[in-house]
Amino acid sequence: MGRGIGELVSTIKSKMIFASDNWAGVHPDIAKRLSDEANGFAAAYGASELDKKVEQTFNELFEREVAVYFVGTGTAANSLALASVNRPGGVTFCHREAHMIEDECGAPEFFTHGARLAPVDGENGKIDPQNLKSEIARFPPDFIHAGQPMAISITQATEIGTVYQVAEINALAAIAKDKGLPLHMDGARFANALVALNLTPAEMTWKAGVDIISFGATKNGCWCAEALVFTDPKIAKDLPFIRKRAAQLFSKTRFIASQFEAYLADNLWLKLARHANIMAMRLRQGITTAKHARLGWQTDTNEVFCILDKSLAEQMKQQGAIFHPWNPPRSKQHLLEENEILIRLVTCFATQPDQVDQFIELLD
Amino acid sequence: MGRGIGELVSTIKSKMIFASDNWAGVHPDIAKRLSDEANGFAAAYGASELDKKVEQTFNELFEREVAVYFVGTGTAANSLALASVNRPGGVTFCHREAHMIEDECGAPEFFTHGARLAPVDGENGKIDPQNLKSEIARFPPDFIHAGQPMAISITQATEIGTVYQVAEINALAAIAKDKGLPLHMDGARFANALVALNLTPAEMTWKAGVDIISFGATKNGCWCAEALVFTDPKIAKDLPFIRKRAAQLFSKTRFIASQFEAYLADNLWLKLARHANIMAMRLRQGITTAKHARLGWQTDTNEVFCILDKSLAEQMKQQGAIFHPWNPPRSKQHLLEENEILIRLVTCFATQPDQVDQFIELLD
Amino acid sequence: MGRGIGELVSTIKSKMIFASDNWAGVHPDIAKRLSDEANGFAAAYGASELDKKVEQTFNELFEREVAVYFVGTGTAANSLALASVNRPGGVTFCHREAHMIEDECGAPEFFTHGARLAPVDGENGKIDPQNLKSEIARFPPDFIHAGQPMAISITQATEIGTVYQVAEINALAAIAKDKGLPLHMDGARFANALVALNLTPAEMTWKAGVDIISFGATKNGCWCAEALVFTDPKIAKDLPFIRKRAAQLFSKTRFIASQFEAYLADNLWLKLARHANIMAMRLRQGITTAKHARLGWQTDTNEVFCILDKSLAEQMKQQGAIFHPWNPPRSKQHLLEENEILIRLVTCFATQPDQVDQFIELLD
Amino acid sequence: MGRGIGELVSTIKSKMIFASDNWAGVHPDIAKRLSDEANGFAAAYGASELDKKVEQTFNELFEREVAVYFVGTGTAANSLALASVNRPGGVTFCHREAHMIEDECGAPEFFTHGARLAPVDGENGKIDPQNLKSEIARFPPDFIHAGQPMAISITQATEIGTVYQVAEINALAAIAKDKGLPLHMDGARFANALVALNLTPAEMTWKAGVDIISFGATKNGCWCAEALVFTDPKIAKDLPFIRKRAAQLFSKTRFIASQFEAYLADNLWLKLARHANIMAMRLRQGITTAKHARLGWQTDTNEVFCILDKSLAEQMKQQGAIFHPWNPPRSKQHLLEENEILIRLVTCFATQPDQVDQFIELLD
Repeated sequence: MGRGIGELVSTIKSKMIFASDNWAGVHPDIAKRLSDEANGFAAAYGASELDKKVEQTFNELFEREVAVYFVGTGTAANSLALASVNRPGGVTFCHREAHMIEDECGAPEFFTHGARLAPVDGENGKIDPQNLKSEIARFPPDFIHAGQPMAISITQATEIGTVYQVAEINALAAIAKDKGLPLHMDGARFANALVALNLTPAEMTWKAGVDIISFGATKNGCWCAEALVFTDPKIAKDLPFIRKRAAQLFSKTRFIASQFEAYLADNLWLKLARHANIMAMRLRQGITTAKHARLGWQTDTNEVFCILDKSLAEQMKQQGAIFHPWNPPRSKQHLLEENEILIRLVTCFATQPDQVDQFIELLD
Repeated sequence: MGRGIGELVSTIKSKMIFASDNWAGVHPDIAKRLSDEANGFAAAYGASELDKKVEQTFNELFEREVAVYFVGTGTAANSLALASVNRPGGVTFCHREAHMIEDECGAPEFFTHGARLAPVDGENGKIDPQNLKSEIARFPPDFIHAGQPMAISITQATEIGTVYQVAEINALAAIAKDKGLPLHMDGARFANALVALNLTPAEMTWKAGVDIISFGATKNGCWCAEALVFTDPKIAKDLPFIRKRAAQLFSKTRFIASQFEAYLADNLWLKLARHANIMAMRLRQGITTAKHARLGWQTDTNEVFCILDKSLAEQMKQQGAIFHPWNPPRSKQHLLEENEILIRLVTCFATQPDQVDQFIELLD
Repeated sequence: MGRGIGELVSTIKSKMIFASDNWAGVHPDIAKRLSDEANGFAAAYGASELDKKVEQTFNELFEREVAVYFVGTGTAANSLALASVNRPGGVTFCHREAHMIEDECGAPEFFTHGARLAPVDGENGKIDPQNLKSEIARFPPDFIHAGQPMAISITQATEIGTVYQVAEINALAAIAKDKGLPLHMDGARFANALVALNLTPAEMTWKAGVDIISFGATKNGCWCAEALVFTDPKIAKDLPFIRKRAAQLFSKTRFIASQFEAYLADNLWLKLARHANIMAMRLRQGITTAKHARLGWQTDTNEVFCILDKSLAEQMKQQGAIFHPWNPPRSKQHLLEENEILIRLVTCFATQPDQVDQFIELLD
Repeated sequence: MGRGIGELVSTIKSKMIFASDNWAGVHPDIAKRLSDEANGFAAAYGASELDKKVEQTFNELFEREVAVYFVGTGTAANSLALASVNRPGGVTFCHREAHMIEDECGAPEFFTHGARLAPVDGENGKIDPQNLKSEIARFPPDFIHAGQPMAISITQATEIGTVYQVAEINALAAIAKDKGLPLHMDGARFANALVALNLTPAEMTWKAGVDIISFGATKNGCWCAEALVFTDPKIAKDLPFIRKRAAQLFSKTRFIASQFEAYLADNLWLKLARHANIMAMRLRQGITTAKHARLGWQTDTNEVFCILDKSLAEQMKQQGAIFHPWNPPRSKQHLLEENEILIRLVTCFATQPDQVDQFIELLD
């Protein structure tokens, strides 16, 4: 979510909607699959044939046996991921501007009964390995006063539209391994990162050292489908109780499973993400050549950050463009002139080229 | 959920499914509405026009301005209801066999950081007012050692298929009011109780003294639609933060709103509940006249409790009947002979008369 | 603490103080040891020579290597005991009127983030093994809806002055072992029970199947000295972090250690408990022969429960007797006539025979 | 506590103890008062005459009616202070290297069920008002995703031995007031700051805009005496339950009260703090003129930070000096040469001039 916007958009006439990828609806294939599932009875609470079948699909997707738990929101996936590796006085290291710090209203701390998110600085929305080492070094083993490290969490794609290269994940995974810490990946935009990097799920996760994945599908064409994936099922031993106690075990889970079934079938998910990324690229190109705007920084996925005059931003809103203002990252504090504003533009599976073009035109 | 059953029902050939009302799918009208919503963009996180419109529908439904929050599961609704009235050392009084005690894996305690569910005994699944008074009396005001009462919660319909009459709710509400405690109603089967009693929502809730309602729709034809309703919006002041921190604020909330829209339109919800209740009545009548079974006790809604020989139960399962065994209520401990078993049979909007008849036939 | 009493006793002229064993001060030997410790420097946070020495004393006391953690209150000891064996959706079985349920303001639930205390009924303040089995049976393994058993806790001596015989502990320990649950003993009045039973600490605990002990000394002559003892140090692996995070790691821990040193030296603790028990016996004998009072039930330690006319109780208060009214146990509901009251009388290391005699005289 | 030191100091022969002010014992006047209190009975749980009397003393001390709660540790005081103003998704702003962030093992987060400590940077251990404003600005009112500000906490004296001037407190209090946030002061070394600034308690707290104070006495000559002071008793309404549930209500509270009585009598506390500060000044002067060491930065109270060669530090330890290494503040990262180490030296009421002189001599 963007910063400082709470207004109700009472009628959406505009086609220029770049507020967030969760403003989109549901892809027709997924909607159809949901409809088809409406008939008939099936075992509740994740015990249906379909639930089991889709769990199996995740094994194939990740090229190994994984433990998969469906939950309702990305915040739930992140929070339960941390809850599963929780420790008394536990500390999770994540980027200073990670979604779990900035946009989850304290849910990760809540679900872990107060485990801390220790912010680590780094350029381009990515944890800097040296900073990570320094921060972890403040928690010597068995020094009870400081607490104890419990996990490292990275966001892929990051909150500011960039991606970790495999080598960058490797570097953080090496630190995690050295310290005996699990490495979590917040993959709310997993698919967008995957196609940007042209990797397989296995390559972007466990082959690179990632242990737990919040595998998001809601932002990429589902209505409510998030999976918590453990590459080592042993870590997830208590998860069934953790999830139930967290009120995240849906009785009719198969309606999440069915979304995933359609989402993953025939690489639909990759096609949708690729489309969103291409639309973002079109936006970036337009901004680069626009007279009255410039890019905040280079991005790799479906988020674009644009700097423009406050008055122009206001004018564009009047003309129907929808977007959120964005807090400049602390590492880019001097990005803006006095009269300027930073805005975030997010594309998605449903973004149309003419929406982009219309927006770019207004910039001139 | 029933007791002691965890098995995977791998293929559901049977038509005799009485396991739970959450084994059903989604009513076609609701499924269609979900599909229709798939297209187009709308503001996320509850800010869309549709969200607002459906909230307004709740005002009409309850004949007053209420505060409504959509969440994903009944456990979430119950838990956040208690979280909204939480106190340090808080104690909620509920029936000893309430769903929140028996079937939510500690979620209410978790979301309230350890507030207690104090079990109160009572016949027929209903809190006995005298017992309630005695239990509350164990918590004198300002006696910090015992903790402090924070709420009373009743289940309507109860976990064992009975309903509170309005006078019974009044009696508990009077105690609640006297002690300054909010009265919560777990309405996972709100509609089934409503049609059984032939009341309006207002009559069954705030006119009878109920302050907070978990308004369930999932068991009655939706796939995932629960509403937390506060008859006094002031109590709900912090709920937006409580819900978000609880990972229960869905980004595409409008897909919950759309389910409710179809559910509440043209009294669909009442028709579905009425159908389920009638199917249960048919079951009860069949059992009453059956040779090898008898009713555990009289029920008023869509749950039927049946006592039969363990061997017969086993046999019926072989022939495709699906149901859960059930723990006899503590107040009915001597219900069973040595060789007998108590089972729960639940009907729903999708139960067909021939399913019932087929089941009854097997009993003979 | 007694029920329903919050008044400030502004001036204690009476010598007839039977309100609680924590109204007493500190035994002179312990007070002197505290004073002696005032001089000099020592490592903080439990790392001093004295801390280590007293930990060693506990090994000798229990005739095996134990893990010992000093904390400030009995509630802390109980709560951290449960926190050390906590599980998601966890349930601890204890007597329905255990101190941790009735008098700790929800602390055990708080420190376990909402693990439940499941009340088990039983005569004479003691858990009935059959009831325990029935209650545990409501939590089938892997049935996530109900939650998962995590511990059994008994109170020795019980809240109503009785004691578990070794055979009774054995019976509960057998159930605990069968279910894989740790057995905790709330020993706020450990010494009183021990001398009543004429056992060694080892015999009353691990030899009988107890795994974790809240070893209380405050009520028996210290000012603030409670020890959490794990007979298997492995269980306590995370306790240093749990205790620190619970704000129960005192910086100058050696002042707790020094109290224990004096307390345990030359069997002082056993002498003090024996004295308290003898004073209680004197009280019981007096009440038995008194005209206007009778015993509520037989007790074995330093608590005596007495039934008398409300008016007489009032009169005795006027004449300087200090005691708390007490809620009749649920299993003894018909104990009282309309005009009667149940009161609790507690003796301690500092109770004098003439205090007792003066009280008994007033009863006639 | 210092960083990276867990070793057991098995025998303290050295007189050069500068490890921490909590390595000292108890001042003779306070020890005597504790002894005197050992005799006699008194109401437990804070209801004794003495408890009430000392509470009254706090009113006089602060020149207004305050609410006072005795607790056992500074961590408890800080944690319960925050718990009393807790909010769902709550965020407390404190210095990045505050004790509550660095040395309390997550206790503040634990006692608030996961409220966050948001680190704010600032020179000299003090929150920078501009940074504070920027950080608070990231939490727009009613923007549920980020959470909601709940408090600001400052440490006086700071963790690195400096003090906030009244004007500096005023500046932060103005921000707090503007945002409707309570201002908390962690006064573990309240007395040391007070005498350094030559202020009254009222001037350093509520007259400067402070609402809640953790008033520490343990580090300044008591064995276990911390008071949580609310300048507006209304805020503390729920504190009795919060404290009890937190296992911080001692049964024999009067032994904390009695320490405070002696501590506050005849300005003993100020004398002790003044002595500690003077000893620190002597240390600082010695270091300034020493050949092989230099001050890390200027300090105002009883903490001194010294930079010296690692080999010299090692050598001094061999000769009996006891001190902790210290992590350089993030704002002073380039303080050290490769071969150097930063150490913290803490003086206290019991530090003797010759201890200091002996230490300084070794530096040359």
